[in-house]
Amino acid sequence: MTGGRRPSGRRKQARFMATLCRPAVSVPEHVITMEETLELARSRHADHPQLPLALRLIANTGVKTRHIVQPIEETLKHPGFEERNKLYEAEAKARVPAVIQRALDDAELLTTDIDVIIYVSCTGFMMPSLTAWLINEMDFDPTTRQLPIAQLGCAAGGAAINRAHDFCSAYPDSNALIVACEFCSLCYQPTDLGVGSLLSNGLFGDGIAAAVVRGTGGTGIELERNGSYLIPKTEEWIMYDVRATGFHFLLDKRVPATMEPLAPALQDLAGLHGWDASDLDFYIVHAGGPRILDDLSKFLQVDPHAFRFSRATLTEYGNIASGVVLDALRRMFDEGGAEHRARGLLAGFGPGITAEMALGRWRGSDRETA
Amino acid sequence: MTGGRRPSGRRKQARFMATLCRPAVSVPEHVITMEETLELARSRHADHPQLPLALRLIANTGVKTRHIVQPIEETLKHPGFEERNKLYEAEAKARVPAVIQRALDDAELLTTDIDVIIYVSCTGFMMPSLTAWLINEMDFDPTTRQLPIAQLGCAAGGAAINRAHDFCSAYPDSNALIVACEFCSLCYQPTDLGVGSLLSNGLFGDGIAAAVVRGTGGTGIELERNGSYLIPKTEEWIMYDVRATGFHFLLDKRVPATMEPLAPALQDLAGLHGWDASDLDFYIVHAGGPRILDDLSKFLQVDPHAFRFSRATLTEYGNIASGVVLDALRRMFDEGGAEHRARGLLAGFGPGITAEMALGRWRGSDRETA
Repeated sequence: MTGGRRPSGRRKQARFMATLCRPAVSVPEHVITMEETLELARSRHADHPQLPLALRLIANTGVKTRHIVQPIEETLKHPGFEERNKLYEAEAKARVPAVIQRALDDAELLTTDIDVIIYVSCTGFMMPSLTAWLINEMDFDPTTRQLPIAQLGCAAGGAAINRAHDFCSAYPDSNALIVACEFCSLCYQPTDLGVGSLLSNGLFGDGIAAAVVRGTGGTGIELERNGSYLIPKTEEWIMYDVRATGFHFLLDKRVPATMEPLAPALQDLAGLHGWDASDLDFYIVHAGGPRILDDLSKFLQVDPHAFRFSRATLTEYGNIASGVVLDALRRMFDEGGAEHRARGLLAGFGPGITAEMALGRWRGSDRETA
Repeated sequence: MTGGRRPSGRRKQARFMATLCRPAVSVPEHVITMEETLELARSRHADHPQLPLALRLIANTGVKTRHIVQPIEETLKHPGFEERNKLYEAEAKARVPAVIQRALDDAELLTTDIDVIIYVSCTGFMMPSLTAWLINEMDFDPTTRQLPIAQLGCAAGGAAINRAHDFCSAYPDSNALIVACEFCSLCYQPTDLGVGSLLSNGLFGDGIAAAVVRGTGGTGIELERNGSYLIPKTEEWIMYDVRATGFHFLLDKRVPATMEPLAPALQDLAGLHGWDASDLDFYIVHAGGPRILDDLSKFLQVDPHAFRFSRATLTEYGNIASGVVLDALRRMFDEGGAEHRARGLLAGFGPGITAEMALGRWRGSDRETA
């Protein structure tokens, strides 16, 4: 399976390490359960010829609860693209600063210690991005770099970590702030009736995550290498159809099977680093759906228990897009982290189809590392 | 004027240099002249109470010709956000690869030598971004990193150069490809009747630019330091109102005067580097409008002739958003470049209000440098 790739030309790793500190995560107060989701699908699509299939697919996600920014009855309305974007902006402004503040506190840094803000979000569109408002509102230094990314979807969580790592390699004493703000419920499209859409309606949730990547010091994952991989000729498998009604999420039915071509890319990256992707101490991956985790377990030959953090995110929050990897990592911190120097893999998957992958080691607190 | 900024905490420069090679630029075949623009404004807005002001502002831009992807009669129609985005995608796919190929040829590299594609565009929205299609279509390596930026507007040209520089600092033997694809004519909104909109209708043009930043070797500008600056509390001065009809560009009348607060930021960055922003050998800046160039000349105390490349872009192409800095640089190459080791400044300005600034030296061809 490695014939089409040229890892030999990619034997490059960032020159310096950086530590991905504890993510702060917040999910909205409105909750919808699996039972409510199924009941909604039944009542709204009673005549849909593929309703049984859709219900089975939703049930198979294992998503027990999701959190959304509005009550479900409001979520099901479509007030127009304009109003939804205004709602996105209002909700982001109301909710993001507190999450950022917790991430900074956890990393023991102030806003003025941050050199770049990498803000990833594919569920609302603003120009300027929220970064400009955040710099003003939270007193970041006016010289803070802004890196807003709207077009990497669920892979953007991994991309944010990797670009933060690269930035800290370029500027070894710098600090990067990552923010993933996804209100997937604001992209619900009542008129989209394909099975993929019905499934998506039962899969995605809302959430905000933030984390600091410290160029020096910090407790968390010391990032050692990162890489990206695009599965050839799959750019239409996950995409937005951009219309007057906003972003319409299109999900090809071949997507759930993409871990088979992606697992070798994970193996390749680990191999370049002298590691074996099947034999690492922890795995923090994007849980787009249950099949991703099942297949990674199968193709990497890794115990399913290794994906418990990602599984828990999927079960409790649904797919919160770019926020999944950060929330899965947050759960690993909550469990107490890992042994100092334990080796692990992080990966986000999303449109392209793109994998944004990272390798790193657990770095304990200074007391542990001393 | 420097009291509010804290340059002392920002004495950081990327650890390695990288060379910004000759940009390739392409503008579409449909041309609209200043006379035609003024005539259109007169005929379409005959009853507008501020027509004389709008005409004066348009005339003052000095934009003699602009190039657009469709004939003007098609441009003036609004077929809907969906159709416009599809047009954006079709035109980008038809036009971008040839520009990239020229940029690669000029840098003496192949697609497989590229490690990251930084694609900036604020005039159409796709997810995945064009990067995924480009990787497949032009046979870039599947491991090529994708960095699509849609939310930095006209500042994105500078941001692309700076993030490419940072990437090459993190991976010193790598190469970054920058692509700026802007079809501003696809954001024309017939129902926007404010004076700022009427002015914008006479200011913006379409264009595509691409350039390679080489980690080692190459002829062009050897990038030494970069920085960003956000003018506090101006995030609503340049913005998109996102509606069912697409992106509506809002331009505050205070924007043309922003070089007064930005000039000190340029001075600060140069000062950190031991340079004087008033005494450099070349200047490649975003020509958002004529006042930017006049005021930079005034506040930096630099001869207006120094901004001839930017002025020529504005005059011949209009404001092609993120493409302006790359086209201005292309014109400097066409003039024969500068003395080896000549010192210069590059800067993009855009929403935020954000300046993305870079300092570098002209690096002649290997024959000259030997």
